Amino acid sequence: MVTVKLMENVMKANEAAAEANARRMEEAGIFAVDMMSSPGSGKTTILERTLDALGGELRTAVIEGDLYTSRDAERVEARGAQVVQINTGGACHLDAKVVQQALESMDLQGHDLLFIENVGNLICPAGYRLGESERVMVLSVTEGVDKPEKYPAMFRSCSVALVNKIDLLEVLEMDIREVADEIRRVNPRMKILPVSARTGEGMEAWYEWLRVEVRRTRKSAVRA
Amino acid sequence: MVTVKLMENVMKANEAAAEANARRMEEAGIFAVDMMSSPGSGKTTILERTLDALGGELRTAVIEGDLYTSRDAERVEARGAQVVQINTGGACHLDAKVVQQALESMDLQGHDLLFIENVGNLICPAGYRLGESERVMVLSVTEGVDKPEKYPAMFRSCSVALVNKIDLLEVLEMDIREVADEIRRVNPRMKILPVSARTGEGMEAWYEWLRVEVRRTRKSAVRA
Repeated sequence: MVTVKLMENVMKANEAAAEANARRMEEAGIFAVDMMSSPGSGKTTILERTLDALGGELRTAVIEGDLYTSRDAERVEARGAQVVQINTGGACHLDAKVVQQALESMDLQGHDLLFIENVGNLICPAGYRLGESERVMVLSVTEGVDKPEKYPAMFRSCSVALVNKIDLLEVLEMDIREVADEIRRVNPRMKILPVSARTGEGMEAWYEWLRVEVRRTRKSAVRA
Repeated sequence: MVTVKLMENVMKANEAAAEANARRMEEAGIFAVDMMSSPGSGKTTILERTLDALGGELRTAVIEGDLYTSRDAERVEARGAQVVQINTGGACHLDAKVVQQALESMDLQGHDLLFIENVGNLICPAGYRLGESERVMVLSVTEGVDKPEKYPAMFRSCSVALVNKIDLLEVLEMDIREVADEIRRVNPRMKILPVSARTGEGMEAWYEWLRVEVRRTRKSAVRA
């Protein structure tokens, strides 16, 4: 049972680092979102649009998790956000320790909102808290309706699902209600936001959710 | 460095089991394909179509890897193939040991072709040989063109890429050549088969590849 013990220690160390990250961001009044999804769901495109839309009102930073490349980081940086790149060197998820290191290199006081774009993977990232305020997942409608039941840990661990690429619903002959029903069967409390990062449809509801959460976080930080 | 040592032992045990699986299938004259992809790329739909098309000529079995559910296994079983379901209980990949157990419950002599549908994940499955004859990956064009560079281990470990959902290329304003170029940059020797499991376009080339490989495997088994 050596393996199990080691895994327990890894998880304990992660929880401690996540706790420290969370405290640090709370003190700085930052609302931090851990964004997770399958590869190719459109996380980075959603981030690009969000930075374009909210750039004027919210001071936003991004931590980009990728196996090896900095493609996403470059895309997001082009939008004017402060970006810290983390390469996991092949590991299938970020952990709280590497996020801790990233936070150390950032100007936390100068930001309201932090996106942590996790590695594209519907399994591994669900098990590792990073110290985020909320977990948001992106599900592309092209992935089909069976994903919630097949990857329940991910769907249960997130509070918001951005259901992306709804501009393709018609060609796919899919109904958004069917997707929403499957999500709610696994996580009845999930907030479901149908969006198209390509056309912009539905994105305003996502921006508004971010605005409200950022305001709330700032208020608690001032009060403390 | 206990972690590293343990990991080494895990990998060594996996290699040994993979070797045993490979020998066993060679002896039985079975061509075995490890199918890997992101969640929602269309692996199971491709399998369904393939079973429909080749059911009359090849005796096909399927091992279905999933975290918890048997949804895919039920879909494939409805097509008349012998199916063994493996639930990984949350693990992000199949390994050679669980495949070994699955093989023990199967009538190997009675089959020509075995599909092993791995867990939907572009990272973890690449590291674990199962004893397969070939590795095939499915990439949906909806995932965008940057996947080869972002997940190079997966793209390098496979010999065939089924580029699926090409019926959506026009709506996505994408060019298949761009996708193929990005794949070849990471793995110049990869066989690229553009297909649509929905419309059936391009599937004949995939069936033909399977026929040739099955014939070759059978011949070597007879000779040995």
